[in-house]
Amino acid sequence: MIQTAAGVRPVSEVGEFALIDGIRKVIGGARVSLRQVALGIGDDAAVWQPTSGRALAVTTDMLVEQVHFRRDWSEAAQIGHRALAVNLSDMAAMGALPRFAVVSLGLTGKETDRWVFDLYRGLTALGQRWKVQIIGGDIVTSPGQTTISVTAHGEVHPARVMRRDAAQVGDVIAVTGPLGLAAGGLRLLTEGTTRRDGAPGMLAAHRTPQPRVMHGLLLSWAGVRCAMDLSDGLLGDLPRICTASDVVANLELSRMPVPQALRWHFPDWQELALRGGEDFELLFTAPPEVFARVERIFKRFNLQPPTQIGEMVKPRKDAQVLMLRGYDLIRRPVHSGAFDHFAPAALSTALGRS
Amino acid sequence: MIQTAAGVRPVSEVGEFALIDGIRKVIGGARVSLRQVALGIGDDAAVWQPTSGRALAVTTDMLVEQVHFRRDWSEAAQIGHRALAVNLSDMAAMGALPRFAVVSLGLTGKETDRWVFDLYRGLTALGQRWKVQIIGGDIVTSPGQTTISVTAHGEVHPARVMRRDAAQVGDVIAVTGPLGLAAGGLRLLTEGTTRRDGAPGMLAAHRTPQPRVMHGLLLSWAGVRCAMDLSDGLLGDLPRICTASDVVANLELSRMPVPQALRWHFPDWQELALRGGEDFELLFTAPPEVFARVERIFKRFNLQPPTQIGEMVKPRKDAQVLMLRGYDLIRRPVHSGAFDHFAPAALSTALGRS
Repeated sequence: MIQTAAGVRPVSEVGEFALIDGIRKVIGGARVSLRQVALGIGDDAAVWQPTSGRALAVTTDMLVEQVHFRRDWSEAAQIGHRALAVNLSDMAAMGALPRFAVVSLGLTGKETDRWVFDLYRGLTALGQRWKVQIIGGDIVTSPGQTTISVTAHGEVHPARVMRRDAAQVGDVIAVTGPLGLAAGGLRLLTEGTTRRDGAPGMLAAHRTPQPRVMHGLLLSWAGVRCAMDLSDGLLGDLPRICTASDVVANLELSRMPVPQALRWHFPDWQELALRGGEDFELLFTAPPEVFARVERIFKRFNLQPPTQIGEMVKPRKDAQVLMLRGYDLIRRPVHSGAFDHFAPAALSTALGRS
Repeated sequence: MIQTAAGVRPVSEVGEFALIDGIRKVIGGARVSLRQVALGIGDDAAVWQPTSGRALAVTTDMLVEQVHFRRDWSEAAQIGHRALAVNLSDMAAMGALPRFAVVSLGLTGKETDRWVFDLYRGLTALGQRWKVQIIGGDIVTSPGQTTISVTAHGEVHPARVMRRDAAQVGDVIAVTGPLGLAAGGLRLLTEGTTRRDGAPGMLAAHRTPQPRVMHGLLLSWAGVRCAMDLSDGLLGDLPRICTASDVVANLELSRMPVPQALRWHFPDWQELALRGGEDFELLFTAPPEVFARVERIFKRFNLQPPTQIGEMVKPRKDAQVLMLRGYDLIRRPVHSGAFDHFAPAALSTALGRS
């Protein structure tokens, strides 16, 4: 039998064991830290030696073809990047240092072996950047669609965990970066207008979101105790902090960090920025003096400064948790815009959310 | 709007948040240990405080509808049980004490809310039995098929980990329980002959496998250093130990613990027992004196004694790793029967394997 190069054959012909061997090579070439990996891929379970005095943060996300990604809209490596990125973003939101992950892959059998290896290349490239080791996983048949499930693990100082229920009245509300770029990128792909001016930045925000790991560590170090990552849009995510912490958010529309490209291209840029999902920037709240410290620390580390977008106030009688002051300077209650994965309309428009 | 009871509506009508609330109630009712759970469901990540001096064992398995389970062959609670059981079985195979798990669920939208809650009931019931807490997860849309991904975590003494590469020449090869029952159960379901005498035991072995957690802990404690769980059948799994450890297995057909029900019902019972998957018994190897100690300890804990099925010998020149002595007392090489998830034939016969 002639040995063909990777990429020619669908995985149903390659066979599970050749596929796993190839994946092992990709992962083996991207080893970042073996000191704490007592036992890696190839046994019933992987074994990790935790750092003394640290707590373990654990998060998991499942990405489904046609729901969270499309194979004609993103390269395999981008999909792999994304699958790990959404998990590392959760680590960042906790103030945790990400350390290792396990990856389960459901394959239809029609993917080529090159596609699968490229997926792992994207995944391990992001892992290497943050010194995150892939230490185990599972590969199964999934006839309906390609499915990727990643569980990421990080280490965090128990007293420095950033939670959703720790916001207080008087806290500054802030975000680490621009809003709406990823939603803009998704819109361009949906409309087939990806050659527009300013498109590359938006497409990259959608395809290869950058988890704000360094930002999260510095926030936690600076004394911030309340944070989450923006996956369902500002008006979908912020109410979760408000409800968990029993506070109301007063937002200022004029302060929102909305990129010019978004304002130029989309008449409804406000919706994209406030309700568009998957920016994976960090949303945090902190007393003004802690926020000032964050600004100094970010500057020292050459990071873009955080943007203050509002402040936390006392809960109101009418149970509205979000107030937005528009360009007319009038403050109005706004509806929470949490994304519902199972609402009938959502089932068709869910693409891109996680 | 009239509030209807759980069970009437497909989850696409129930909505993600009502669904998550219901799941939270099921999990909240099954809390087993909060001491080490610093932060549970509802934040970006769960936080766990590891036990000092212990290593962390991590394993993950994905179960896909029509491939690993069928909704008309198993109750929701049985499918939930199974999804956790296959992971706890991996913990058992490492000699780890399982502690917590995260669960990702991909739903088509057509499942009823009661089906989803029942799935979690089965999952948490098994969790409670072994004091395993569900501390987080993800719920997404999966239009093609229902998909369940579980990542389980356990704690293990670093020096007492049971590995696949630790078998030695002279070791006894043994299993903790009967072979082929689960494959028999699957056959009954395929043939539609589930009312046969002896069927309940076989069906239960397929639908609700019991992870050998206690056996694994005792094996590790007794000094066994080489073990794995039987998921792909004895002749599929044992070669992995042989290859990793560079030894050859001499097996005795007459010693195989094959239940009478299997011999009565199936002319090819030998294939079912040796190559049938998903028994989730533990396969281990140990020097004779350690095996004798295991026998004493199992007896003291009122467990069925382990069954010696062969011994490990030196590697041969022809690279065959499995030798089987049949009822005719002649020793012949046998082909490894590892199950290949992506072989074309396997795609149609994969049901029930994991």
